[in-house]
Amino acid sequence: MHTFEKLSTLFAERFNQRHFPETPTNLYDAGEYFLNLQAKRIRPVLCLMGNELFGDIRPDVYHVASAIELFHNFTLIHDDIMDKAPLRRGQQTVHERFGSSTALLAGDVMLVAAYDHLNKIDPHFKFAVLDLFNKTAREVCEGQQLDMDFEKQPIVQMDAYIRMITLKTSVLLASSLQLGAILGGAGLGNQEHIYEFGKCLGIAFQVQDDYLDAFGDPTKFGKQVGGDILSDKKTFLLIKALEAAKGKDKEALEKLLKENSPRKVEEMVSIFRSLQVDKWAFGLKKQYMGEALRHLEEIAVLSSRKKPLEELAEFLVQRDY
Amino acid sequence: MHTFEKLSTLFAERFNQRHFPETPTNLYDAGEYFLNLQAKRIRPVLCLMGNELFGDIRPDVYHVASAIELFHNFTLIHDDIMDKAPLRRGQQTVHERFGSSTALLAGDVMLVAAYDHLNKIDPHFKFAVLDLFNKTAREVCEGQQLDMDFEKQPIVQMDAYIRMITLKTSVLLASSLQLGAILGGAGLGNQEHIYEFGKCLGIAFQVQDDYLDAFGDPTKFGKQVGGDILSDKKTFLLIKALEAAKGKDKEALEKLLKENSPRKVEEMVSIFRSLQVDKWAFGLKKQYMGEALRHLEEIAVLSSRKKPLEELAEFLVQRDY
Repeated sequence: MHTFEKLSTLFAERFNQRHFPETPTNLYDAGEYFLNLQAKRIRPVLCLMGNELFGDIRPDVYHVASAIELFHNFTLIHDDIMDKAPLRRGQQTVHERFGSSTALLAGDVMLVAAYDHLNKIDPHFKFAVLDLFNKTAREVCEGQQLDMDFEKQPIVQMDAYIRMITLKTSVLLASSLQLGAILGGAGLGNQEHIYEFGKCLGIAFQVQDDYLDAFGDPTKFGKQVGGDILSDKKTFLLIKALEAAKGKDKEALEKLLKENSPRKVEEMVSIFRSLQVDKWAFGLKKQYMGEALRHLEEIAVLSSRKKPLEELAEFLVQRDY
Repeated sequence: MHTFEKLSTLFAERFNQRHFPETPTNLYDAGEYFLNLQAKRIRPVLCLMGNELFGDIRPDVYHVASAIELFHNFTLIHDDIMDKAPLRRGQQTVHERFGSSTALLAGDVMLVAAYDHLNKIDPHFKFAVLDLFNKTAREVCEGQQLDMDFEKQPIVQMDAYIRMITLKTSVLLASSLQLGAILGGAGLGNQEHIYEFGKCLGIAFQVQDDYLDAFGDPTKFGKQVGGDILSDKKTFLLIKALEAAKGKDKEALEKLLKENSPRKVEEMVSIFRSLQVDKWAFGLKKQYMGEALRHLEEIAVLSSRKKPLEELAEFLVQRDY
């Protein structure tokens, strides 16, 4: 059994190389640029962990892990075009640096490269792997569309938000684990539990991410605290607050959303606290984390094999609050 | 053996149905809208023809044909975003009607749908089919990048232009045929000949397309005559003219490219004629067409089986001039 760090190194040894031909330079430099930015590679490591849960790591699982990472980067390049984001991983986004058209194409060709890796695995697993990969890819696109749709809606229901987050973020974490498990020869029941583990973990992670935007320690949190609040982003916190607020709180909340008060972050955080949205979020995260761990428990392998996944879950979802 | 028309009908019976789920509406309506526009479906029919050249049509070749048509439509949606094109097939482009972000995503999810079809074929052929499909997809992206690169260059060499056209247009026609042939159990030699047939046919078709823009009969040519000339598009004709022109012709040509004379189309056509670019293009088309037919001849099947492909080649490349 390997730790996250060790698996991350093993993956990097294979992944940190040129992925594309030299020419056309404009197209492939854009893709190489993005793949060379510092990144945590959580998803491919989850894939390796899902594989090792059921036995020794198979050589061809690195192709699946690479496909997942390429797919993830493809979605980031395209999402950044849609969101007109200037920065990603602390560096210029691909469209900022190479123009929108090349960024679009660089994303396209990265998705094709992902499928090229999937074509190299043991034919015995190819149908199941492609089937799950395609389903997940569709769902991630659906999640991005719902995210854009929600931006234009004044009110978003909590269950719709959870569904969007599940599609946009959680299903890829879940599938990464399951794809590794498929190559590990896991049965369908075990595959389902590892998928649900990843899905619940992803939602818990997002609850925490939304929480940290408002309540995080600015010296520890990687992003600007209050960024979501300043951009009126619909988060677990804001959606819950809009649901819960009545009377004066509701008025104050709606006023704050319409205006751009210089004390917007402070005031919003104070409303969140008065509505106990912080405690609610803490409970929700705990609930999803509990559900994730119950699914992990249900997987029929020696519990010692589950250690790296337990540790990763704790690491991802217990950061600094 | 079936004619183009019959194969086109057989394909439409399977393809003309809903391809995507109902929701998210914004995402999938965009894709369905585009797939419902009137189109010739040349590529999937080529795939069926490539298959029937070697035996009876196999049921799973329709999945490959569908994947090819979905891939082609994905490239059109994304190309139209990059080119900011208002119209396609006489109707609003996807980004004009649904916005750029949704068009981008609708293209992405269409490419995934293509791979979903490829996953449904006989596992025996899956590696070879995915391998060729991926190679072709990469090349089409490379062709689009080169096309965009060339727009910014004052001079484009003829061999570079032919390479760009080959990647952007011909390889998909060539692969459509070869993919059908793979499922027909064709040997590698026959596969190579059918591929080269499609590639040369594609270049001949492009020479003709460029020719018709300048010399076509406006009552018969589908597009506006002189459209390429008005937009200073690099075509076979312009590249050849820039190569061939000397002295006064060269001056007149360069002046015409810089200015926007109201008689630009007329004057350019007259320069083309004086440089005999029309005759040259006619010869070039004939040369590629001859090469295509020589490759068709080399395929080791009864010549009666080649009739539909011969007829299609004549039909595609002998239109109105």
